[in-house]
Amino acid sequence: MCRECGSHVLQLLSCSTDPSFFLVAKMATAGKVIKCKAAVAWEPNKPLVMEEIEVAPPEANEVRIKIVATGLCRTDLYHLFEGMHEQGFPAVLGHEGAGIVESVGPGVTEFQPGDKVIPLFIAQCGECRFCKSPKTNECEKGWAADNPDVMASPEPRFTCKGKKVLQFMGTFSEYTVIDQMAVAKIDPAAPLEKVCLLGCGICTGYGAAVNTAKVEPGSTCAVFGLGAVGLAAVMGCKSAGAERIIAVDINPEKFEKAKVLGATDFVNPKDHDKPISEVLAEMTNGGVDFSLECVGNVKVMRSALESCIPGWGVSVIVGWTDMEDFSARPVQLISGRTWKGSLFGGFKSKDGVPQMVKAYLDKKVKLDEFITHNMALEKVNDAIELMKEGKCIRTVLSVSPQ
Amino acid sequence: MCRECGSHVLQLLSCSTDPSFFLVAKMATAGKVIKCKAAVAWEPNKPLVMEEIEVAPPEANEVRIKIVATGLCRTDLYHLFEGMHEQGFPAVLGHEGAGIVESVGPGVTEFQPGDKVIPLFIAQCGECRFCKSPKTNECEKGWAADNPDVMASPEPRFTCKGKKVLQFMGTFSEYTVIDQMAVAKIDPAAPLEKVCLLGCGICTGYGAAVNTAKVEPGSTCAVFGLGAVGLAAVMGCKSAGAERIIAVDINPEKFEKAKVLGATDFVNPKDHDKPISEVLAEMTNGGVDFSLECVGNVKVMRSALESCIPGWGVSVIVGWTDMEDFSARPVQLISGRTWKGSLFGGFKSKDGVPQMVKAYLDKKVKLDEFITHNMALEKVNDAIELMKEGKCIRTVLSVSPQ
Ligand SMILES: NC(=O)c1ccc[n+]([C@@H]2O[C@H](COP(=O)([O-])OP(=O)(O)OC[C@H]3O[C@@H](n4cnc5c(N)ncnc54)[C@H](O)[C@@H]3O)[C@@H](O)[C@H]2O)c1
Ligand SMILES: NC(=O)c1ccc[n+]([C@@H]2O[C@H](COP(=O)([O-])OP(=O)(O)OC[C@H]3O[C@@H](n4cnc5c(N)ncnc54)[C@H](O)[C@@H]3O)[C@@H](O)[C@H]2O)c1
Ligand SMILES: [Zn+2]
Ligand SMILES: [Zn+2]
Ligand SMILES: [Zn+2]
Ligand SMILES: [Zn+2]
Repeated sequence: MCRECGSHVLQLLSCSTDPSFFLVAKMATAGKVIKCKAAVAWEPNKPLVMEEIEVAPPEANEVRIKIVATGLCRTDLYHLFEGMHEQGFPAVLGHEGAGIVESVGPGVTEFQPGDKVIPLFIAQCGECRFCKSPKTNECEKGWAADNPDVMASPEPRFTCKGKKVLQFMGTFSEYTVIDQMAVAKIDPAAPLEKVCLLGCGICTGYGAAVNTAKVEPGSTCAVFGLGAVGLAAVMGCKSAGAERIIAVDINPEKFEKAKVLGATDFVNPKDHDKPISEVLAEMTNGGVDFSLECVGNVKVMRSALESCIPGWGVSVIVGWTDMEDFSARPVQLISGRTWKGSLFGGFKSKDGVPQMVKAYLDKKVKLDEFITHNMALEKVNDAIELMKEGKCIRTVLSVSPQ
Repeated sequence: MCRECGSHVLQLLSCSTDPSFFLVAKMATAGKVIKCKAAVAWEPNKPLVMEEIEVAPPEANEVRIKIVATGLCRTDLYHLFEGMHEQGFPAVLGHEGAGIVESVGPGVTEFQPGDKVIPLFIAQCGECRFCKSPKTNECEKGWAADNPDVMASPEPRFTCKGKKVLQFMGTFSEYTVIDQMAVAKIDPAAPLEKVCLLGCGICTGYGAAVNTAKVEPGSTCAVFGLGAVGLAAVMGCKSAGAERIIAVDINPEKFEKAKVLGATDFVNPKDHDKPISEVLAEMTNGGVDFSLECVGNVKVMRSALESCIPGWGVSVIVGWTDMEDFSARPVQLISGRTWKGSLFGGFKSKDGVPQMVKAYLDKKVKLDEFITHNMALEKVNDAIELMKEGKCIRTVLSVSPQ
């Protein structure tokens, strides 16, 4: 506790026995520009470059966070290698992070330095008609909703070599600045190098099954794509009581992990000549009750819909692409299927993430099983390669020491 | 009542005071081939031709129905001018009819000669897993579900000039034969020349709003296409308590009727340079809660989806085409919209139609307002022209005298 302002100081320093040291340490960075390390994406389709960047102090209602750990999500790769919107560079990517509040801007009362937090890629202002509706986790103030094409907030707080550097969450930086509407305070007991995954992939997949598809006990489900998002969807289906969970991936190395998380059947489309929807229809007497697309491929989105049983099948698009349209024949909906999409698993972000952290601490959701690699932020390009090659589920990068 | 078998005789003859006359009348056609008038579609894209056809007696579980009146629905035109599947001809079209049971085949206990009935284009066997599920009105035995591409039952009971003639419902014939799973017995007080519209268009549109979209009180809705189906959707939105109902059609002559049925706002896409979804978003602060596509055009399906508010907007495809795919960008679902389809308005057919007939008799749903023209079956090609030119809502054709 800082004697001057009463706020918590950075955890890192809490081992000192001299209370005045806390005070000095806090004051050393608060209100000032911080120079720190970050992995900068200067242009599309190029490796990230470790740079020293400047991180501005938080402005009104903002929180500056020391990022301790971050996952690498497929959406980061999408931005770098597929979306490649020119106006989206240079940028600091990374949006699956966890850290500790370093300082807060004017008007912030909910957070104090030292709080453990997870930055949120959709806001929860709590006041707009979306936040007030139980039907959605969209927030009118959400960055993602405003700028679906550019993974960056309109006014970045980063500069590097005299240039403005965009950020979305910017968790590939030791420090980042985020509006308090998009930060969740979590249990101080939470291990940041695990719960960072709740900042995106795990909440996304788990919630897509539980909140968006609303998987029912005894149902039959299919999950397409067994990255962290798809595996979390498998876990969500299981926790919702699904009887049969068919895991679909063109990379059979993913099946083992899917089994650990609850999948009962395993299908590699490459093993079949006929369309995968026919294979699943035969396995399930007409189609699955729920399907989840966790790949980001419009053809797979269609297959996932077609794999659903007419009458009541529900298919949820979770994978991301804005390069192409998805499509189907009208009769495929008219015959009773429903097509939905899920953003961040339908979780109201500020409410949902602390609950999922608690569920992890209570051993009700798994996270450790998703982490196949740990490395330092400096190795982020290796982590990218691993994901490109399908050799990892999640790599957790350590960013700053705690 | 027939003294011999105890069944009701044809209403037409019930004015006679000699009971033995009833008996003879009934026996005169039962069990025999009936020769009668029908409008035959010999080939795609050609006018229908009035012919004498032979209608076989009902086989096991079948009912032979004297059609008294029938509507003409856009789906008939679709079959004739757009779908044009070669294997779908020659055929007797018409699927929005009402009539009187003439005779029943072996095993039929639910129907008796003289019962007023509406033939159903989706069955309700009552026994399959679809019929047993409250989630759907599909039936495993439904013709439409089995043969979405061919509006015909696999084994027609019609012949003409020595050729088999396909039928779907075949209501453009004085007599038709239908499986009892696809026939609804209705209130004897129902005027057949009105309630025939409940055989398709009105139940479809009304139910799409009430059952499929599940329109909520106080909500804002948009209905695209103001034929009988769309107007019935307007009526459904109103009866569900919608506060604002935006009627959209490129033919402004339809707006007056839409107003009668409950529409509050009227938009002609031709009056605007910008996409109709933008127009609606501006009118509604971001989009409508529910939209219904009642045109049968994949571009309009997309507009209807895009006109929904992100977060919770629900769009329902009601219009029919199997010529093209509908499509959209993944973000349009990921941002929280739901895309559904509706077949026969989600009504379980045998249960729903008698209820809707009752609702009409109780003045809870309107039918008369939909009927803009009445003519004899012989004039069916005129009715087709009227619909093509957008000059009618529904034409009711009288087929046999009652
Ligand atoms: N909607 C959201 O809120 C949200 C949030 C996070 C991520 N995403 C998206 O979710 C998707 C998955 O993310 P991830 O991090 O798990 O990615 P990942 O790359 O780790 O996993 C994708 C998996 O899909 C498999 N795959 C590829 N093509 C396939 C095919 N044709 N059929 C079946 N499987 C196939 C790959 O082998 C891989 O296992 C991405 O598109 C990402 O952008 C969406
Ligand atoms: N799903 C089902 O169970 C089911 C059942 C019956 C009918 N249908 C389908 O419903 C649709 C409507 O049937 P109907 O009998 O009311 O047809 P209709 O021809 O009477 O009405 C269609 C209306 O759409 C309007 N329209 C055409 N293009 C438009 C556009 N671009 N934007 C806005 N409006 C436009 C026309 O002006 C017309 O008023 C048809 O496609 C039919 O096949 C589906
Ligand atoms: Zn992500
Ligand atoms: Zn909000
Ligand atoms: Zn119809
Ligand atoms: Zn059935």
